[in-house]
Amino acid sequence: MQAISLDMGGTHIGCAVVRDSEILAQFSLPSHQARSLESLLPSLAETLHSLLAQTKISAADCTGVAVGFPGIVDVRSSTIYSTLKKYEDAKDFDLAAWFLREFNLPLRMENDARLALLGERYAGAAQGYDDVVMMTLGTGIGGAAMLQGHLLRGKHAQAGCLGGHLPVDFHGRICACGNIGCAEAEASGWSMPLVAKSWPGFASSALASLPEIDFKHLFDFAEAGDAVSLAVRDRCLEVWASNAVANIHAYDPEIVVIGGGVMQSADSIIPFVQEYVNRHAWAGGSRPRVQAAKLGNYAGLLGAVPLLSEVFDVSAA
Amino acid sequence: MQAISLDMGGTHIGCAVVRDSEILAQFSLPSHQARSLESLLPSLAETLHSLLAQTKISAADCTGVAVGFPGIVDVRSSTIYSTLKKYEDAKDFDLAAWFLREFNLPLRMENDARLALLGERYAGAAQGYDDVVMMTLGTGIGGAAMLQGHLLRGKHAQAGCLGGHLPVDFHGRICACGNIGCAEAEASGWSMPLVAKSWPGFASSALASLPEIDFKHLFDFAEAGDAVSLAVRDRCLEVWASNAVANIHAYDPEIVVIGGGVMQSADSIIPFVQEYVNRHAWAGGSRPRVQAAKLGNYAGLLGAVPLLSEVFDVSAA
Repeated sequence: MQAISLDMGGTHIGCAVVRDSEILAQFSLPSHQARSLESLLPSLAETLHSLLAQTKISAADCTGVAVGFPGIVDVRSSTIYSTLKKYEDAKDFDLAAWFLREFNLPLRMENDARLALLGERYAGAAQGYDDVVMMTLGTGIGGAAMLQGHLLRGKHAQAGCLGGHLPVDFHGRICACGNIGCAEAEASGWSMPLVAKSWPGFASSALASLPEIDFKHLFDFAEAGDAVSLAVRDRCLEVWASNAVANIHAYDPEIVVIGGGVMQSADSIIPFVQEYVNRHAWAGGSRPRVQAAKLGNYAGLLGAVPLLSEVFDVSAA
Repeated sequence: MQAISLDMGGTHIGCAVVRDSEILAQFSLPSHQARSLESLLPSLAETLHSLLAQTKISAADCTGVAVGFPGIVDVRSSTIYSTLKKYEDAKDFDLAAWFLREFNLPLRMENDARLALLGERYAGAAQGYDDVVMMTLGTGIGGAAMLQGHLLRGKHAQAGCLGGHLPVDFHGRICACGNIGCAEAEASGWSMPLVAKSWPGFASSALASLPEIDFKHLFDFAEAGDAVSLAVRDRCLEVWASNAVANIHAYDPEIVVIGGGVMQSADSIIPFVQEYVNRHAWAGGSRPRVQAAKLGNYAGLLGAVPLLSEVFDVSAA
């Protein structure tokens, strides 16, 4: 199957022409200065026509378009329930109609973490597994769950997607979502700097010299022995590990795949989380495996073929 | 439909003959002195024959036997994965064969909280809802989840059942399940007394005079103004409310039904949890309702007809 694949991220839209589990051509279209999805359409059309030309595949040779969207999306009814301060106009704009007009192709839009899970299962870390949890550690903490070969979606398409919004501390910080002490509120790209800045001794830590605190520096300074960095890093590891157990208890997976920008430090993260899961997770069968995502930014793009191949249970739509 | 219904609790086995959503006759068989399930079978047989005689229904008029079991059970493959220090021999004993021999009836065994959810949906608080989370607050915290009319079960039949084992405090107490800071480890029948006893000022609290601390006394003393009771009660309410949000984020329900022995204090619990959910839960659609279970000890018994009516998706078995 050939398809057009889009992954709408915070600063870029990943664009690709794929054939099964192969990316034939791709381009990362900057989107951070765009005020709206609609304003990006001319450059998006141009990008896609150019990728098709490169691959010598015409739109007519493609089965459809798969779009990963950073928000709560119901692919069954083509509804966007929530946007997350990005592409706010997507809720009202009929992207499917635009693609039909421009490329004569049908479109399926799905939550970006669900699409990444499909990609990692199709061609990455979760190959061969039917029961999968995906955690994406980045600016926020995204998630998706597949049970017995079926993506979990639920009534309002939220099920499985809010794994990062399971609490780890009921007396913790207020989360972007409004809840208290979510994993995301305690150890994500946006919340970790707040945790670090309120840590005793922060002023004399190497972190205090940074214009912006990020995970790269946190892990580097911890490695170099900076005390505050070590303490904050270890707290983040505990939060992620506790959150992995929460996801295992909620969804009963065989494998937890962890992706996202923070995974440049996978070598520190994966063994810690695996060990915590071995010690603390309730698992009647064999212990769930914890593994780093393999496909990086391409996971969502490679979710296109499985998404477009999915046959929806009409009773569940 | 007529059926025999069993609900295997910690101290009693609820036994009933049911017709649809009606309990025609029931008896609560003491089980706390029994060393094993097998040792109870003679009195169980006697009880059931007597209930059938009372109702003038013969076993041949029944469709089958539904059994609620306190452990991780896969009804699709008739496997007991975990027992919880009760009826340990049930894993190896073939109860289905026994029922076939004694009553010529087929048997389906399901986790007790899942059966209670089915009962509450069939004839209680969740009537008319397809997306339901059940929380049972008792000695432990049980749970079950239904999405779009289907009970969530997952690969090892754990999915949905471990809602009480989602963490609320990643630096909290060790849970009976081995995890850290589960809701059950912070605010259940077995853990609340530990929390109370370690509370500053406990020695001068009214609770200190009790031979055994239970929720009934905790709520009464809190109402009467005992400071430690108030503080511990309020902490329990927060734990349950945070856990309700965790379950909502995990399973996307329209309604959360809370049952279990602690719900004798439903008037204090339900409004608190509903208000917390309104303030803190991520819900794209309408706010999930929080409601007290209606059927008490009969919820599991009334789950019999929906359980025996269920058509299993063979691909999911």
